[in-house]
Amino acid sequence: MRNQKHSHGSALENTDRLEAFSDGVMAVIITLMAFSVKAPAAPTWSALHHTGPSLLVYVLSFSMVGIYWNNHHHLLRTTERISAPVMWCNLILLFWLSLLPFATSWIGRFPNHVASVVTYGLVSLGAGISFSFLVHAIVRANGVDSDVGRAVQGDLKGFTSIGLYAVGSLLGFVSALGAFICFGLVAVMWVIPDRRFVRRHAH
Amino acid sequence: MRNQKHSHGSALENTDRLEAFSDGVMAVIITLMAFSVKAPAAPTWSALHHTGPSLLVYVLSFSMVGIYWNNHHHLLRTTERISAPVMWCNLILLFWLSLLPFATSWIGRFPNHVASVVTYGLVSLGAGISFSFLVHAIVRANGVDSDVGRAVQGDLKGFTSIGLYAVGSLLGFVSALGAFICFGLVAVMWVIPDRRFVRRHAH
Amino acid sequence: MRNQKHSHGSALENTDRLEAFSDGVMAVIITLMAFSVKAPAAPTWSALHHTGPSLLVYVLSFSMVGIYWNNHHHLLRTTERISAPVMWCNLILLFWLSLLPFATSWIGRFPNHVASVVTYGLVSLGAGISFSFLVHAIVRANGVDSDVGRAVQGDLKGFTSIGLYAVGSLLGFVSALGAFICFGLVAVMWVIPDRRFVRRHAH
Amino acid sequence: MRNQKHSHGSALENTDRLEAFSDGVMAVIITLMAFSVKAPAAPTWSALHHTGPSLLVYVLSFSMVGIYWNNHHHLLRTTERISAPVMWCNLILLFWLSLLPFATSWIGRFPNHVASVVTYGLVSLGAGISFSFLVHAIVRANGVDSDVGRAVQGDLKGFTSIGLYAVGSLLGFVSALGAFICFGLVAVMWVIPDRRFVRRHAH
Repeated sequence: MRNQKHSHGSALENTDRLEAFSDGVMAVIITLMAFSVKAPAAPTWSALHHTGPSLLVYVLSFSMVGIYWNNHHHLLRTTERISAPVMWCNLILLFWLSLLPFATSWIGRFPNHVASVVTYGLVSLGAGISFSFLVHAIVRANGVDSDVGRAVQGDLKGFTSIGLYAVGSLLGFVSALGAFICFGLVAVMWVIPDRRFVRRHAH
Repeated sequence: MRNQKHSHGSALENTDRLEAFSDGVMAVIITLMAFSVKAPAAPTWSALHHTGPSLLVYVLSFSMVGIYWNNHHHLLRTTERISAPVMWCNLILLFWLSLLPFATSWIGRFPNHVASVVTYGLVSLGAGISFSFLVHAIVRANGVDSDVGRAVQGDLKGFTSIGLYAVGSLLGFVSALGAFICFGLVAVMWVIPDRRFVRRHAH
Repeated sequence: MRNQKHSHGSALENTDRLEAFSDGVMAVIITLMAFSVKAPAAPTWSALHHTGPSLLVYVLSFSMVGIYWNNHHHLLRTTERISAPVMWCNLILLFWLSLLPFATSWIGRFPNHVASVVTYGLVSLGAGISFSFLVHAIVRANGVDSDVGRAVQGDLKGFTSIGLYAVGSLLGFVSALGAFICFGLVAVMWVIPDRRFVRRHAH
Repeated sequence: MRNQKHSHGSALENTDRLEAFSDGVMAVIITLMAFSVKAPAAPTWSALHHTGPSLLVYVLSFSMVGIYWNNHHHLLRTTERISAPVMWCNLILLFWLSLLPFATSWIGRFPNHVASVVTYGLVSLGAGISFSFLVHAIVRANGVDSDVGRAVQGDLKGFTSIGLYAVGSLLGFVSALGAFICFGLVAVMWVIPDRRFVRRHAH
């Protein structure tokens, strides 16, 4: 660790602490979201049933954070150097993710209303765009010919996610169900692991 | 750390970040559960006495998370490589554990009701089954002849836990006390450390 | 990291994850305690003044956790191997510390009542005794002639802390002020860093 | 890691755990602040609009913690040895930062009142002064001719921040807007990364 500090030319290469901090924030987000699913006020199945929408939205939000954690993990494993813009893009991603408990709590209580559904979509959209910026900042810091640069060529899944979140946010104005389908599609799409990074490493 | 990233053939070997993230989630779960034991509204012993069931259930849930942390620690110490399914099984385990504060808060307030007791049992059961899947995903990624593969042969304790949680959940429909005894038995059984991993390493 | 896993004979030597998990729990405890100091309901200085006791108790509890973190850090830096009892003693210490937000919140609201003051003392006492057990479990795992074994010889400060918490808890029955003085003395005593570990390492 | 423990002469050199603990506290602070932005009680845009001040203050506080994390990261990367005073200065910085959710929650609800605005300013001032003390403790432990000693020479930005927080706190007595402008200026000033550390490392 000591040697590592001095053996590299640039100050911002080491990804360890960036990963640790991001892990910490995402771990707290997940747990706080679950915590904001309030225990029913009565000990009955029908009271639990009323908590249903909150629990379902929690499953969706948990998937979203889980996917970001997973992709963040793969992305930074391939990354060799980070720069100041990478630091800030990562913080901005964490900012949007940190709004997720707020949005999740609101949509959980009001799953059929325009304002809560659209807000949830916009927070998801903010996180999606931030992740895309993070990827580009990392590529700029490492070069397009670096491992990570070649791995993320043509970030189709990223752009599709952003598109689905945008469409879902707009759909939220007319149909909550349509919006949820869009948000859910993103989760389903990403549960399949990002083969780009796996392939690059496996050769 | 840099060298490590490049010296291995497969992308998903390193268990560091998986452990760090799981530690983070479990640390927050433990603390949030304690936090959801609300300070009594009056400064009297009888008010504290009313908090008794919540505190007792907290002790049970703390033991459960402590045991998972302990076993997770032993399991991943023996693990040499992780795969995409390992990542997802781990996230699913964290999902079920993250519902524990919710279930603990509910059963703490209503320790003698079917709905809260059965829900607590089902969340515990979900975590138990997920841990079992995690073990199997790790064995599949490392091979049955690997250190971890031989260490977990015949996962009797794991299956007994799942069985006790299932029986406890069913018992919850007729007797809260019976359910608690089942849940408590799992904790007692696991407080004895898993000799399998210790033995394998010690040779 | 890989090599490390295999180069040691015993399964339980590495202290990294134990430290990481403990850090996580203590970090969350500190922040949750601060969070449980509720923002005043009115934007006035007198409303803030009402929050005074909560803030003062938070300062005391923050010091306590800060001191445990500090001592835990020094203790585990000197530790070479951990055993199953060390794992459990550490979990029991974290259990008592995790009750601190509960006790802090209660005593903050009722700083002049027997039940809340004594409860706060008992939780502190539980943490103090657990830390003492942790120290002994570590010495047993490393031997009295190990670095850590010689470093903790005659744990006077530890026993004094336990004594002060016990006396403070008893004093709580007759004088809240007396109890607070005892609890505060422990903090003052420990803010002076533990020279034992510093000296041992510095030679 | 084992070797590292024994190969250095002084007990307090390793910055790993100090960074990990600080990361944990800052990660929880960020997420708890977001969490204290309560979801609106009604599913309408006007209800969300009422949450506006809370969200804006959250953006400001998030920036503040993000900046501290960033600077803390740069500072400790350059640091070779830590001492007991460094440990305590770091804890005091975390103490002030841990009060930020409290201050943020209060000012978010009452953005136009003297008490809440001034309190927010004083907490920020406390954190700013603590960070300055931390820098000086680190320089004292490493020597003015060390990497970190030369990097922080003439800590103009640090002193400007403290000045702006002090002025903002005073301005809070006459103009909430003036205070916010001061607090915001600090954030803007720091978003530009600290070239001192980057330059020193890059040569």
